[in-house]
Amino acid sequence: MKPHLVIVGGVAAGPKMAAKARRMDPDIPITLVTDEGIISYAACGTPYYLGRVFEDRKKLLVREAEDFGRKNGVTMLTGHRATRIDAAAHTLEIVDLAGGGTRTLEYSKLGLATGARPLMPPIEGLDAPGVFTLRSVTDAFAIDDFIEQYNVRRAVVAGAGFIGLEMVENLRERGMAVTLIELLPQVLPPVDEVVAVAAVKELEQMGADVLLATRVEGLERDERRVTGVLTSRGPVPAELVIMGVGVRPNSELAGEAGLELGLRNTIRVNQRMQTSDPDIYAAGDCAEQTQIVTGEPTWIPLGSTANKQGRVAAVNMAGGNDCFPGVVGTALVRVGGLNIGRTGLQQRDLERLGAERYESCLVPQNDIPGYMPGSAALTLVLHAEKDTRRVVGAQCFGAGEVSKRIDVLATAITAGMTTEQVASLDLGYAPPYAPAMDIVITAANVMGNKLDEATRGVMPGELCRTCTPETVLLDCREPHEWAQGRIAGARLIPLAQIPERAGELPADRPVVVYCKGGLRSADAYRKLKCAGLKDVRYLDGGITCWMGETEG
Amino acid sequence: MKPHLVIVGGVAAGPKMAAKARRMDPDIPITLVTDEGIISYAACGTPYYLGRVFEDRKKLLVREAEDFGRKNGVTMLTGHRATRIDAAAHTLEIVDLAGGGTRTLEYSKLGLATGARPLMPPIEGLDAPGVFTLRSVTDAFAIDDFIEQYNVRRAVVAGAGFIGLEMVENLRERGMAVTLIELLPQVLPPVDEVVAVAAVKELEQMGADVLLATRVEGLERDERRVTGVLTSRGPVPAELVIMGVGVRPNSELAGEAGLELGLRNTIRVNQRMQTSDPDIYAAGDCAEQTQIVTGEPTWIPLGSTANKQGRVAAVNMAGGNDCFPGVVGTALVRVGGLNIGRTGLQQRDLERLGAERYESCLVPQNDIPGYMPGSAALTLVLHAEKDTRRVVGAQCFGAGEVSKRIDVLATAITAGMTTEQVASLDLGYAPPYAPAMDIVITAANVMGNKLDEATRGVMPGELCRTCTPETVLLDCREPHEWAQGRIAGARLIPLAQIPERAGELPADRPVVVYCKGGLRSADAYRKLKCAGLKDVRYLDGGITCWMGETEG
Repeated sequence: MKPHLVIVGGVAAGPKMAAKARRMDPDIPITLVTDEGIISYAACGTPYYLGRVFEDRKKLLVREAEDFGRKNGVTMLTGHRATRIDAAAHTLEIVDLAGGGTRTLEYSKLGLATGARPLMPPIEGLDAPGVFTLRSVTDAFAIDDFIEQYNVRRAVVAGAGFIGLEMVENLRERGMAVTLIELLPQVLPPVDEVVAVAAVKELEQMGADVLLATRVEGLERDERRVTGVLTSRGPVPAELVIMGVGVRPNSELAGEAGLELGLRNTIRVNQRMQTSDPDIYAAGDCAEQTQIVTGEPTWIPLGSTANKQGRVAAVNMAGGNDCFPGVVGTALVRVGGLNIGRTGLQQRDLERLGAERYESCLVPQNDIPGYMPGSAALTLVLHAEKDTRRVVGAQCFGAGEVSKRIDVLATAITAGMTTEQVASLDLGYAPPYAPAMDIVITAANVMGNKLDEATRGVMPGELCRTCTPETVLLDCREPHEWAQGRIAGARLIPLAQIPERAGELPADRPVVVYCKGGLRSADAYRKLKCAGLKDVRYLDGGITCWMGETEG
Repeated sequence: MKPHLVIVGGVAAGPKMAAKARRMDPDIPITLVTDEGIISYAACGTPYYLGRVFEDRKKLLVREAEDFGRKNGVTMLTGHRATRIDAAAHTLEIVDLAGGGTRTLEYSKLGLATGARPLMPPIEGLDAPGVFTLRSVTDAFAIDDFIEQYNVRRAVVAGAGFIGLEMVENLRERGMAVTLIELLPQVLPPVDEVVAVAAVKELEQMGADVLLATRVEGLERDERRVTGVLTSRGPVPAELVIMGVGVRPNSELAGEAGLELGLRNTIRVNQRMQTSDPDIYAAGDCAEQTQIVTGEPTWIPLGSTANKQGRVAAVNMAGGNDCFPGVVGTALVRVGGLNIGRTGLQQRDLERLGAERYESCLVPQNDIPGYMPGSAALTLVLHAEKDTRRVVGAQCFGAGEVSKRIDVLATAITAGMTTEQVASLDLGYAPPYAPAMDIVITAANVMGNKLDEATRGVMPGELCRTCTPETVLLDCREPHEWAQGRIAGARLIPLAQIPERAGELPADRPVVVYCKGGLRSADAYRKLKCAGLKDVRYLDGGITCWMGETEG
């Protein structure tokens, strides 16, 4: 077999494979095939282009195909679709989308970076002008042209995933009325309820309409273009509809060649990014991943992962040896003034794996010292495994700096750090950047207390679901805080008065004590236990993170 | 022995010890002794108060002593100095600084959080009005009053450590002419030369005078107050002098009691924060630390560490069990528009431990994608151990977001992660926060190539020192970049022309190839090796990070 690398895909993992393979081996012939006319574009930047955060389309185009090919010594076959792999013969059949001609390329190693494509709900009218998906820059330019051409004032975004939320923000920035429609009862399925509730508040604050638990059932159009969306809650007028209900991997080429497929029809790969055929590699959005925390297969298609996988695949295709261990599922999204991040396992995962094995906590704290201008609120959710005390998941949201805390916790989770190891991390401290005790340290300390059973908390979502008229809600703040608003049905005993007044509480009923953010109520928990009360918990995150009814 | 916790020190570790011990044990008597009148203040915020970043003095006072004592059930002895420990008798002698009376407190466990105090150079005139150290909020208020009273327009800061640089920034903010005087040939001893050079550029850009390798030899005064600083380079006029040449631990009390002292006269402690006397604990700026990377003793007094140590000491003093493993030496500082951070080992450490065992790299890259507004430059230095491939140190500087990268690397270094583990970290990716390949990932990849000997680099500082007329400096950028400025004495061969033109280079002389930031020159390195050149290196960080002469 004459050495010849053939790579299918031109966005992230494909060009990365080609460029890295060339750096590994100056002589080997490399051919890159892509059915698009352009390569290597900044797909994740498209919502911000549409929001006019920047105006120059060219900024989305990272590399020009011909230039990339010349500089890297790669034969560029843009506008060609790969149609069939003959794994035994080591050949790839490709079709010229312009001319229609078919050719066969021989390969010694084949790299698949075929990406993913938008899922579409099984409804009619998807072909109406004004109905778009947003996956490539070509899509973005078409949406932009459509908005300009028709001076669109009213849009619907279907699907409240990361890109859906980015689109709501950016279409609002562009001055449109926007309705977000989501089939599930919460936005952002990859985060816990408490985070999703904060996102909805922010979406509404920026003037978007949010319809949860709502099914898109069809599209209305006039003779020219889309006019509305039919939903399970009635019609919603729309001049522009962005369908963002999810993606699926482009794995048909691999599947038809007999390569093993994995979770959600991704192409199964080992840590060397090798498929079930040792001469075929896959990387990027088409390839299966491993969740490092559980060792289970997962699939979180992201450009960051695609680049890393493409590099590892290239090293191995060129005769080297490199591994991609997997992901922890880190993701960030900005929604107006709210920063949101997540990493590792979430509540839903814990329930699947056995909720009793895990502990959670919820801690609000500012990102930098309160005396510094710009100091802003954060809330951090941690999940830890009781047996090992390992931190297994984290989510953070707020107007403050979220991404640092999430990246630190992603690193700690990847390293398998325990709650105590996180609590003693030597994180940078200087007033412009962080307080002496960063929220990451504070939250790990709170988690440690819970794991030690020095305190016992209840997450706000759980309390909402399990609170009965029996439950005594005890506010331990000061009277002036109480006067400004409290959880509906709560009674007041300020922290300092708890030792002498605990007898006022019915000893046979469950007590949940709360304060502003959780600090005083954890203290109150101890005092109530000392006073002999049996069934006491404190409310994680206090009234700051409370999602239920308030009064006063 | 009747249980009674006595704690000495009221700033960070002391109050933390008292509050945590109380949460651990609701009944044990706790007494806190401090020679100051106030407790628990935000010492690190003082430079920003002096720069009028915020105006309200009260914001620096975190807790009021009486209130703290009442809420936590702690007997507060402010204005009392601890003068003698009788370890055998388990007693502490204290003096009332107001009344002068002496008392003896019995303790079952004693916690020392005696802090540190400014070092003073052995010169005359330190008692002149207008000469200050900055350690406590009391110092800050005195400086502030002095500035107001005399309408100070001209200040000298002696000592270019973190606080020295913060003071330069803030006194400039307040409109003063500022001269920074440093004995060493670089500012910020805890960072490598390339970072220190960037800091000096920024200090000069904000209008400060920087005198390096300059000794403060005396102070001039008139009948009322200080008028100038005498230095090894001549006199510098000054109406205000801030002495920030370092600190030393307050360990005399411990030393006189026979407790074992450690590095730089800190109080030696084990991981439980226990001194050589099992009933005496120490925490905060007076206590020795362990550098996690090397296992060696270190001493980096910081409020963040003090809080963690205080908590651990309290748990153990109250009968629990907790450990503080040490620090990696993370520190952040803002200098005008420049963010600077460091963690782990630095070049000086590597030289002490054996430079040949380590590899370094230097990578410039923007913090968020270039198409996003606010995208700003960063430069990242990594140090790794060749044998284990562990990342052992990192420094980052630039107008971009530094603190996230430093905290991620502090976490990775603490976990003992290899270069490859860092390169595959699942860091958050979304355009407002990070590019698809974060600078941390890019730098780890660059380091991997060096460790594999796929490339061979030279750090700019090393090239400055070792470059001879023999050395061929090769610029591999495009002619239009060359025309805008180049390293003095360099010659130009654009990257694409290297294969056919490598023969123009003298085969027997060392070649150092450079580009803008290091990416193309690493490629050029490979092409030059392919062309048969023997002694080739590329310049880490390219002309972007070059500290020597340029021309054109």
